[in-house]
Amino acid sequence: MHIRNPRTGQADYTISPPNPAQITDLVNQFRLAQIDWLALGVEGRVEAMQAWKNALERYKEAIIDALTTDTGRRNETLLELDVVLKSIDRWCGIARQFFAPPSQRVSSIPFISIEQDLVPYAVVGVISPWNFPLLLSVIDTIPALLAGCAVVVKPSEVTPRFIRPLLQTIAEVPALAKVFTYLEGAGETGAALVESCDLICFTGSTATGKRVYKQASERFVPVFLELGGKDAALVFEGADLDRASSALLWGSVVNTGQSCLSIERIYVQDTIYEEFVKRLIDKTEEIKLAYPTVSDGHLGPVISDKQVDIINEHLVDAIAKGAILQTGEPGCVKLGGGHYCRPTVLTNVNHSMKVMTDETFGPVMPIMPFRDEDEAIALANGTIYGLSGAVFAGNTEEAIRIARRMQCGAVSINDAALTAIMHEGEKNSFKLSGIGGTRMGPSAIKRFMRQKAYLIKTAGIPSPWWFG
Amino acid sequence: MHIRNPRTGQADYTISPPNPAQITDLVNQFRLAQIDWLALGVEGRVEAMQAWKNALERYKEAIIDALTTDTGRRNETLLELDVVLKSIDRWCGIARQFFAPPSQRVSSIPFISIEQDLVPYAVVGVISPWNFPLLLSVIDTIPALLAGCAVVVKPSEVTPRFIRPLLQTIAEVPALAKVFTYLEGAGETGAALVESCDLICFTGSTATGKRVYKQASERFVPVFLELGGKDAALVFEGADLDRASSALLWGSVVNTGQSCLSIERIYVQDTIYEEFVKRLIDKTEEIKLAYPTVSDGHLGPVISDKQVDIINEHLVDAIAKGAILQTGEPGCVKLGGGHYCRPTVLTNVNHSMKVMTDETFGPVMPIMPFRDEDEAIALANGTIYGLSGAVFAGNTEEAIRIARRMQCGAVSINDAALTAIMHEGEKNSFKLSGIGGTRMGPSAIKRFMRQKAYLIKTAGIPSPWWFG
Repeated sequence: MHIRNPRTGQADYTISPPNPAQITDLVNQFRLAQIDWLALGVEGRVEAMQAWKNALERYKEAIIDALTTDTGRRNETLLELDVVLKSIDRWCGIARQFFAPPSQRVSSIPFISIEQDLVPYAVVGVISPWNFPLLLSVIDTIPALLAGCAVVVKPSEVTPRFIRPLLQTIAEVPALAKVFTYLEGAGETGAALVESCDLICFTGSTATGKRVYKQASERFVPVFLELGGKDAALVFEGADLDRASSALLWGSVVNTGQSCLSIERIYVQDTIYEEFVKRLIDKTEEIKLAYPTVSDGHLGPVISDKQVDIINEHLVDAIAKGAILQTGEPGCVKLGGGHYCRPTVLTNVNHSMKVMTDETFGPVMPIMPFRDEDEAIALANGTIYGLSGAVFAGNTEEAIRIARRMQCGAVSINDAALTAIMHEGEKNSFKLSGIGGTRMGPSAIKRFMRQKAYLIKTAGIPSPWWFG
Repeated sequence: MHIRNPRTGQADYTISPPNPAQITDLVNQFRLAQIDWLALGVEGRVEAMQAWKNALERYKEAIIDALTTDTGRRNETLLELDVVLKSIDRWCGIARQFFAPPSQRVSSIPFISIEQDLVPYAVVGVISPWNFPLLLSVIDTIPALLAGCAVVVKPSEVTPRFIRPLLQTIAEVPALAKVFTYLEGAGETGAALVESCDLICFTGSTATGKRVYKQASERFVPVFLELGGKDAALVFEGADLDRASSALLWGSVVNTGQSCLSIERIYVQDTIYEEFVKRLIDKTEEIKLAYPTVSDGHLGPVISDKQVDIINEHLVDAIAKGAILQTGEPGCVKLGGGHYCRPTVLTNVNHSMKVMTDETFGPVMPIMPFRDEDEAIALANGTIYGLSGAVFAGNTEEAIRIARRMQCGAVSINDAALTAIMHEGEKNSFKLSGIGGTRMGPSAIKRFMRQKAYLIKTAGIPSPWWFG
């Protein structure tokens, strides 16, 4: 299987996916090895994860190089590895607190006491996307491993180059290598994982997520799905427009807009609309493409060539329906074999346009005015998605009050896309943006375990009570 | 649609299920009404639930009469209503504690604080079975209502007579009647609920549960499934055999064995096997059928005539393969139009017999000896189910240690089927016994809500951070 380089357009890398029978064998082997992993206890698992963190630091350069080739960008790659390394420490701390020794507690029935246990699923399958290849391959994996599960990860075939250096880091921690691995492969490999694992975590498109849910339901295994978004930002009169325009530019174009939590639509109160648009255009025009070299400018190429088609389709559709291109280009541009999307501001947009309803996943900023709060909320909630959003208002209290009306799992207040850097809030996805427990916050670890109750008869009350 | 009476065999009751379009309309109407229900706040909802509890007490006699006709038994019916009334108070208390006012907390990033919210699903569909028609129709409904959801319940068409008096109790609480109702109907009505609600709770057979999961995955809505079991009891040398035999008799035959948490298999250490079997047979022979009147004896008829076929099939299969009938009958007996199953003890059984692997759902007690703990655990875990189990041993510590090795969600220690009376332990179903969060314990209420995080930028750190 040949892999395209997003900067050159050349197929310069090859992967050899395992066949389904090999995956079944691997998962069965992991299911046995998981017993020892669980028996290590949380301290043993924390120790292994810290050893892995050290290995990641030793292989830092090789991982960053591979990820940079995978994604064609460098700034976000440095941030990505940094976030991952920090998250290992955070999860180790949470896991230690989480696994307090069980204690019996008295129930409301005087002759029964209760003891609780947590039993991890044996083998978790993780299927992850190409937009943050490393981060999104470990975001569920690290808490699952600490919970005591074995984990098999199948990252996107679009960005597989980081897998080999990562496998070397895992090999350096023998206890971990028995219960944690990465597979190269595309949809078929992912499907084989869904066919064999005990719980599935999928991050990716809503279309594929729906297929994963159906396949998991056929096998009667649980799924956690983190899917697409069409995050709206609402800017109200009274907001700091300098701050709002900077934050929304960042939230819209960072990583070339290739984040589930990107701002995809901006709604601005009509009284400040002109002023906001002007500021946003001015700032947008300072953003440069990271071309010709990866160290130039800000925005790398669009990673997946399929995504190029979607971005172009949204822009063509919007302009055909009357959208005005304020800055940017009416489609991606081809430079040195890569496809680049200039940060693009559209006005005169409405909800008949795909750019306002479907996930664009590019640095495109369609801006639409609104009259009052009710109209703003109706527009923001007028979507099949419910991942996150942002509110800018004159003060925090007003912004939170408005944010309460938004149908999504997280809202940044007076900033944009804060879930990118802040993983401590517990959030669920609304609507078609996902299914399953929160992947952020302390209780994310609990998703990987079943609760078990021991109901202990403590006094010699005779049974059966209702006979005789 | 004509409904059979389990004591007479006569079709003496008729239901008229709504059509799918009516169900869609109802759910849409509830989706709007839920906004007001949520706005009542937890205190307003607690007040409505307490008013409903009072209405249930006023209609107690009519409900008990209907349920007794539905199920052909009276003792368990009295217990059932009592458990339901008590559970309303318990859930009101839990809900009050649960909805503490939100507070902002500081995160590890100094300029971001976090506030959390809980957002209920709008309309929950509950599909419930015939074995405890009232209890299992409200076990998920009460916490869902208190969470702020609207709820539509579709009980089994085998036992629908209690629905009409129950609807009268709901009508007495106007605030509740706008967001809570029961529908008469069979599989088609249940399927229409899955087609229209925002979250599905299903209690019933694993076969139907699998279909519900598939249908929910097609619609991309979450499901909570509580399905079949094949609960094992392990009796070790050192156990109090008098207590163990009484408890296991109760746990096996109560409600004519028609409980998901019935003991379905008994494994006894070989050194005490003969003595245990003797005691169990002696006690079993004291149990009488509740015939000719509902006030006689102990065990009512088998409620569902389809279940009669399954019980008979298991007994015939076991005896054909060498099982010895120690007491009871080789099949259900027909008395006055009803099908009754005498409490039946089988020995010389093994795992080639359906009675040891499939859910019998009757008062049948197959007993098998084991040599040591490892063999006992292998036998107990040798099943596709993982609902609950029981361990009897010389002391509590030993029993808990053994219980930890059982792959199921709850284990009664030195008693049987304690989840029937104790709903405070948090438990998940293992294997094919279910999917989704715990329906018992305080966090059961959380299943009906999505978490939402507000990430609040508290200081004027300029964004975007990585530009310039």
